[in-house]
Amino acid sequence: MAPAGPYTLGELALALGATLEGDPWRVIAGVAPLETAGSDQISFLTHPKYRATARASRAGALLVPEDAVGLQGPLLRSRFPQRALISLLQLFHPAPEVTPGVHPSALLSPAARVHPEASVGAFSVLEDGALIGRRARISPFVYIGQGVEVGEEAILYPHVIIREGVRIGRRVIIHAGTVVGGDGFGYAFDGAVHQKIPQVGGVIIEDDVEVGANVTIDRATLGHTVVRRGTKVDNLVQIAHNVEIGEDVIVVAQVGISGSTRVGNRAVLGGQVGLADHLAVGEGARVGPQSGVAHDLGAGQDYMGTPARPAAETRRIFAALRRLPELLKRVRFLERRVGELERRLGLTGSSGGRDDASA
Amino acid sequence: MAPAGPYTLGELALALGATLEGDPWRVIAGVAPLETAGSDQISFLTHPKYRATARASRAGALLVPEDAVGLQGPLLRSRFPQRALISLLQLFHPAPEVTPGVHPSALLSPAARVHPEASVGAFSVLEDGALIGRRARISPFVYIGQGVEVGEEAILYPHVIIREGVRIGRRVIIHAGTVVGGDGFGYAFDGAVHQKIPQVGGVIIEDDVEVGANVTIDRATLGHTVVRRGTKVDNLVQIAHNVEIGEDVIVVAQVGISGSTRVGNRAVLGGQVGLADHLAVGEGARVGPQSGVAHDLGAGQDYMGTPARPAAETRRIFAALRRLPELLKRVRFLERRVGELERRLGLTGSSGGRDDASA
Amino acid sequence: MAPAGPYTLGELALALGATLEGDPWRVIAGVAPLETAGSDQISFLTHPKYRATARASRAGALLVPEDAVGLQGPLLRSRFPQRALISLLQLFHPAPEVTPGVHPSALLSPAARVHPEASVGAFSVLEDGALIGRRARISPFVYIGQGVEVGEEAILYPHVIIREGVRIGRRVIIHAGTVVGGDGFGYAFDGAVHQKIPQVGGVIIEDDVEVGANVTIDRATLGHTVVRRGTKVDNLVQIAHNVEIGEDVIVVAQVGISGSTRVGNRAVLGGQVGLADHLAVGEGARVGPQSGVAHDLGAGQDYMGTPARPAAETRRIFAALRRLPELLKRVRFLERRVGELERRLGLTGSSGGRDDASA
Repeated sequence: MAPAGPYTLGELALALGATLEGDPWRVIAGVAPLETAGSDQISFLTHPKYRATARASRAGALLVPEDAVGLQGPLLRSRFPQRALISLLQLFHPAPEVTPGVHPSALLSPAARVHPEASVGAFSVLEDGALIGRRARISPFVYIGQGVEVGEEAILYPHVIIREGVRIGRRVIIHAGTVVGGDGFGYAFDGAVHQKIPQVGGVIIEDDVEVGANVTIDRATLGHTVVRRGTKVDNLVQIAHNVEIGEDVIVVAQVGISGSTRVGNRAVLGGQVGLADHLAVGEGARVGPQSGVAHDLGAGQDYMGTPARPAAETRRIFAALRRLPELLKRVRFLERRVGELERRLGLTGSSGGRDDASA
Repeated sequence: MAPAGPYTLGELALALGATLEGDPWRVIAGVAPLETAGSDQISFLTHPKYRATARASRAGALLVPEDAVGLQGPLLRSRFPQRALISLLQLFHPAPEVTPGVHPSALLSPAARVHPEASVGAFSVLEDGALIGRRARISPFVYIGQGVEVGEEAILYPHVIIREGVRIGRRVIIHAGTVVGGDGFGYAFDGAVHQKIPQVGGVIIEDDVEVGANVTIDRATLGHTVVRRGTKVDNLVQIAHNVEIGEDVIVVAQVGISGSTRVGNRAVLGGQVGLADHLAVGEGARVGPQSGVAHDLGAGQDYMGTPARPAAETRRIFAALRRLPELLKRVRFLERRVGELERRLGLTGSSGGRDDASA
Repeated sequence: MAPAGPYTLGELALALGATLEGDPWRVIAGVAPLETAGSDQISFLTHPKYRATARASRAGALLVPEDAVGLQGPLLRSRFPQRALISLLQLFHPAPEVTPGVHPSALLSPAARVHPEASVGAFSVLEDGALIGRRARISPFVYIGQGVEVGEEAILYPHVIIREGVRIGRRVIIHAGTVVGGDGFGYAFDGAVHQKIPQVGGVIIEDDVEVGANVTIDRATLGHTVVRRGTKVDNLVQIAHNVEIGEDVIVVAQVGISGSTRVGNRAVLGGQVGLADHLAVGEGARVGPQSGVAHDLGAGQDYMGTPARPAAETRRIFAALRRLPELLKRVRFLERRVGELERRLGLTGSSGGRDDASA
């Protein structure tokens, strides 16, 4: 993205809806992290953890929450600092203008339709019946299979593969190398070999979804694999056939979701989480990184661990595990002491029927 | 896949070798899941778990196991319902006819040979000595390195990369974005830097293997990395140099198999399983999802957990873990009670030599 | 790689700086593994584990450590056997000569510059301001975004995607399908939807780094994601925005590193390891496979498990876990015995206040 600017602090305050403390005529040339920002750059503090770094920063101005204290120098105070940060980044790094049109090296089936305001990059292939919406952006090396629909303003990065019949919503972003609509992993063992079950369903990616790089989203056996509106999927995630992911879900990198599992709206799946097949994850459930989920999860709760349990329980188990080796010794010692007590009281027979201490 | 049909129930019964209960002249236009099937569609019940859904289905007919009970309406009873389902899906969704020939935009080395009944898609590159078998299908954007052999009726989806010297068997299917023959991950640390060990071996993918999307299968240091006949590999799997996977193995998504490990015939590796290097996994061993395997595994057994243990043992450990925090408290309480008993009996000296309870 | 040779054992001894025991005129045609080497091939023993295999080998000669004992037949003894093995492999499998030049099918922006000794493969795309260094090798289907710099002698395998502004050092190797510079995974939830935070930073890959196949390395939100000199990254690894990986680090396959985490020089991350965000991993730390790291790790130490702990501690826990189910029984039995003792001594009241044994 080609940088834009500079802007004065006064202009920035206006654009961000922020309150300025400082010289409105001061000129700001760019945005930079707290550690490296110079006197002509603006930086930001969105998390209190970094207050000390903010104090030491040489930035020419800081975007901070409305109630931030203990900071000097020009400040832009915002009631919605995250949103203001987004605006700030967009001001200095506007999305590139894309020239509409089809690159002469792209190969379009005569039966493919591309909106005149859409763009199709070099060496892209659009098969029969492909339909590219208004202002959609198809990068170089993209493969669009038969009958695929790509919604308005969608962005497909280089080397994205959309196989036949998939539907991609409006403003969807799909990063490089991702494969949508590959065959689901389904076989029937006939006693001798694994017979492939034809995967004849489709995939629906609804509006405003973003999918990371080198992700795989398989087509359904029958029906559709679905990723609903507003959901964000990180890199290298596996979404199996007939999975249904709700709205505004967060799926962090390298998660694997097995066949026919349903994930509720606004759920959060941490990195490397694995979900077994045919499960239901409740709305707003949050699953900690690397968890292994083999059972349905309730709505609105935090889960963690393999097997996944309520997060508080897993934290107690993790803490207790540290003491497990010592616990073994303590129990062995107790057994000796109790044996001695029993001997003293002539009760040795009471342990005669069990052999638990021998292991 | 363009749908075919319609068929009458009589035609379907004949084609599937199924016994019809119902009107042989009833017309069926397609296959659909139990939940969405309409009166002109057929659905299927292959797992008793879905019997209630089957009863509530509006499908015009159901494919069911021979001995299914409690279901009304037109039924096609089959002794091999999974196999019949495959036939049913193939009838309504026949594999697309592929026109043989090389797309004019593909770049073939003069020393590459393509069978006249094979097809090579747009923007594909075939290097010297590449050899494409009869009726093989090379999709757009496929890279075929020097001396690669692709067997009869193999299907390579878009963006597949086959590096030099790899051998791909007959009827092999490789999904989009998969890389076969990348360098193995081998270095020798010379005290200062990691020196790359040249990876000069190859990869052999035998007949009837299917490999998912965005998989990586590395070439051997010397010799070959091998995936044997009939094995099925899901998406995003890592197969390192010199690995040997047996016949009819199932490798679920995101599994990682480290260098030189051997997996026996008909083994099943669950999703996200990790195998350390130089291991042997016995024939028919089944490894549960997310397991971490650091030792050889015996044939025909079920394993689970990190570290992987016999599944029954891991299940017992998982169940016991829930009670671990409480167990700590119980032992602490026992220690106090035993201390009191010892005091009463004038035995306090017996615990004097140990300090286990202090932690 | 086209094989070279043959060489006499005398020539090999000279080239490898090894001491020959055997006939210097014996002719060797290639290198092969111990198990398959024939009498005209040389094999090698670099790990004592394989001594029995070496003894049984039919190889015409063996490359062995200087102090190897108990082996017959022609031997090349080397003080640095790993380094000698690298030279041996290079002798018989020299890197292919690459003809400089730009393939006529490649699409170069007029504002892209390619060194005359570099090579650019078929169907590659170089955007404005791309700069390809001397003797660099760009394979077919590579996408080079605006302003990307690729250093001297770098190798980019087919289908690599380098997005705008990324800097690739000298002698860097990037394997097929890898995506460098995709957007970091950053959103701000505004109460209704996840707003995308523009990712306007870059990625710097320093000299002598090797990156495996289908890896994803995200661009920074601001500033740079950095992989320092000499680091080696295996296949299917996820490196998030603003991560900094030190020099000579080893990152094994399917590792995931979350945003802003820093990995110290010469650290080793085992396969499928997950690192949470904003962590620091100390220099030379070694993290065992599948570990889940949620806290900073000290320098020079071994870690293992989820949550990651010092490896020795995790090993003790893993060993103790096996006995956990039995431990539960032993404690239950102890509770009964202690209750009986208390009853005998008229102390039953001492347990009256607790109910721990009831679970």
